[in-house]
Amino acid sequence: MMVQDNPFLALTAPGIAGLTPYVPGKPVSELEREFGISDSVKLASNENPLGPGPRARAAIAAQLDELGRYPDGGGFELRRVLAEFHGVTQSAVTLGNGSNDVLDLVARTFLQPGTESVFSQYAFAVYPIATQAVGATARIAEARDFGHDLEAMAALVTDRTRVVWIANPNNPTGTWLAAAPLRSFISSLPSTCMVVVDEAYTEYVSEPDFPDATHWLESFPNLIVTRTFAKAHGLASLRVGYGLSDPRVAELLNRVRQPFNVNTFAQAAAAAAILDREHVRASVELNRAGMRQYTEAFERLGLDYIPSVGNFITVDVGRPAGPVNQELLRRGIIVRPVGNYGLPHHLRISIGLESENARCLAALEELLAP
Amino acid sequence: MMVQDNPFLALTAPGIAGLTPYVPGKPVSELEREFGISDSVKLASNENPLGPGPRARAAIAAQLDELGRYPDGGGFELRRVLAEFHGVTQSAVTLGNGSNDVLDLVARTFLQPGTESVFSQYAFAVYPIATQAVGATARIAEARDFGHDLEAMAALVTDRTRVVWIANPNNPTGTWLAAAPLRSFISSLPSTCMVVVDEAYTEYVSEPDFPDATHWLESFPNLIVTRTFAKAHGLASLRVGYGLSDPRVAELLNRVRQPFNVNTFAQAAAAAAILDREHVRASVELNRAGMRQYTEAFERLGLDYIPSVGNFITVDVGRPAGPVNQELLRRGIIVRPVGNYGLPHHLRISIGLESENARCLAALEELLAP
Repeated sequence: MMVQDNPFLALTAPGIAGLTPYVPGKPVSELEREFGISDSVKLASNENPLGPGPRARAAIAAQLDELGRYPDGGGFELRRVLAEFHGVTQSAVTLGNGSNDVLDLVARTFLQPGTESVFSQYAFAVYPIATQAVGATARIAEARDFGHDLEAMAALVTDRTRVVWIANPNNPTGTWLAAAPLRSFISSLPSTCMVVVDEAYTEYVSEPDFPDATHWLESFPNLIVTRTFAKAHGLASLRVGYGLSDPRVAELLNRVRQPFNVNTFAQAAAAAAILDREHVRASVELNRAGMRQYTEAFERLGLDYIPSVGNFITVDVGRPAGPVNQELLRRGIIVRPVGNYGLPHHLRISIGLESENARCLAALEELLAP
Repeated sequence: MMVQDNPFLALTAPGIAGLTPYVPGKPVSELEREFGISDSVKLASNENPLGPGPRARAAIAAQLDELGRYPDGGGFELRRVLAEFHGVTQSAVTLGNGSNDVLDLVARTFLQPGTESVFSQYAFAVYPIATQAVGATARIAEARDFGHDLEAMAALVTDRTRVVWIANPNNPTGTWLAAAPLRSFISSLPSTCMVVVDEAYTEYVSEPDFPDATHWLESFPNLIVTRTFAKAHGLASLRVGYGLSDPRVAELLNRVRQPFNVNTFAQAAAAAAILDREHVRASVELNRAGMRQYTEAFERLGLDYIPSVGNFITVDVGRPAGPVNQELLRRGIIVRPVGNYGLPHHLRISIGLESENARCLAALEELLAP
């Protein structure tokens, strides 16, 4: 809802006036009603089409007797498991209500009016929102081949920069940064600047020189690595992610964290999911086959796409994507237009089950036929 | 974790340095291990000992196929149900990851360094934390008979005051404000000052002149009423609460809200729970009987207590409460010391099942015997 002439705006903290109100996407049930469809295919939110694995499902079922009880506010068991998984101390872990929450904690802790954050054109939409919400200034580096241009980003870092946001791989472009240049970029940053490496999609990447930034935590006390359970672990419904950092940084982030920010089921499911390597393997395999399905079809159809290492692919439909999206919706195919990212001719398609991908591709082929 | 000489403190936003780090309470499993007990009774967090009702449980079960999908970011169905329940427009509703989240949204939207918030001595601990987290200044009115002294609060309101926090009833004291004085207080506030009436425990109150502040929303555009599903609705594990306000205020709060702040299960369970009047009735009934169990015992034992209309009772144990609490823990009884509220001789006890209350009272009687 956009409200004109809101007298309460005059009372708000810096940043709120310039903050674009979140426009909630319509739920699938609403879209189905609106477009008169019933068996829609949801390829819009980079979810795991398999959902969570059996271990996470069992962990959820085991908590159903605890519905009336508060979650463990310290997330003791989940932090213990994550610390062991990553070979870090528990005090390095900050739990979030999704990794979005961790990104927000970073902004609230280190940004304020008069300070700046740096990120890339086409980078994940939460970076500008979290920056604006605390009244700080965003500095946006032009992209190179749709991906992060580290030199352009470095050129924007000043003594007012408190946070640099890097998505590796990036959503919505699926682009990625190799270990050597990323490490070199991080080491070049002043110690007054935190750097967030957002690894939400890391499980899907198999490129040999793709880095695991958690291995660099000991080298860079200003590094914060974020991860999520919403993608390869298939737990988007429950909201859980985490940050790993120097414990002194984690201690500050945890000051701002709401004590019960991660619900009981999310904690239990995440602690089980991180150990379910088999389910992650199966999810990544399915994704690889689905990605091939899309790239082969796009090449056959002569459609440009941004090569992606994530669980989604962003394709240039060669015309304004809005009307194409409407036609897809009419056929029960829900994908994501990315005009808000400055990509008005592209659609971002999440990799689904083989049959879902086939339906999406058949609809696209029909719609885009010359 | 308290970190001395944290070099990152110098980089933080106003408020963070003075923010007391959250000290996570130990989970029950840890306490049981530490104290060598196995059948502990948890009366520490004002939870509903019955948990949620059958409607909410069914709603949760119905969502288990959706584990891999994101929640509805707009909370469409839950907001629709809440709006209908309260007879307000959907655009008056702000959903939170617990009502804690809504309180935090209010602070982030309306407080900043140089502004002030006003609340009462012994008021809910989130008010000072949310105020401090954004670098604003807390003005604390001395309590009267452990409850809010509205005259003392009014005297602290200046043109720098942006938020007044009122818990009705209040946690951890169980005190409450009657309709006439509260309404008169709200109407006396300047229009530059938001007033939050936190009604987390409202379902438990049967006093005839206890107000439902949601009925005043049309009269006071600066009023925000918060509610939770963690108490009488028995859904503390899932984290869901909401604010009701003028839609222009809700629009600002929703700018700051993280889009997926309320998980799928919380949304579904809450929408079912709000309509389950029978379960709320049974929970309130159980609470009333348990409250009588405690007050009768305290009178017999000659213990002073703060008369409470909530689902908890705060009792003066007549000596430093810390050691009493340790002895209770050793006997498997988990209650809440409230020294952090400036009540070092009191313990807050949540009303449990009859047998749980009896165990707690027997242990207290034994420990406090002259």
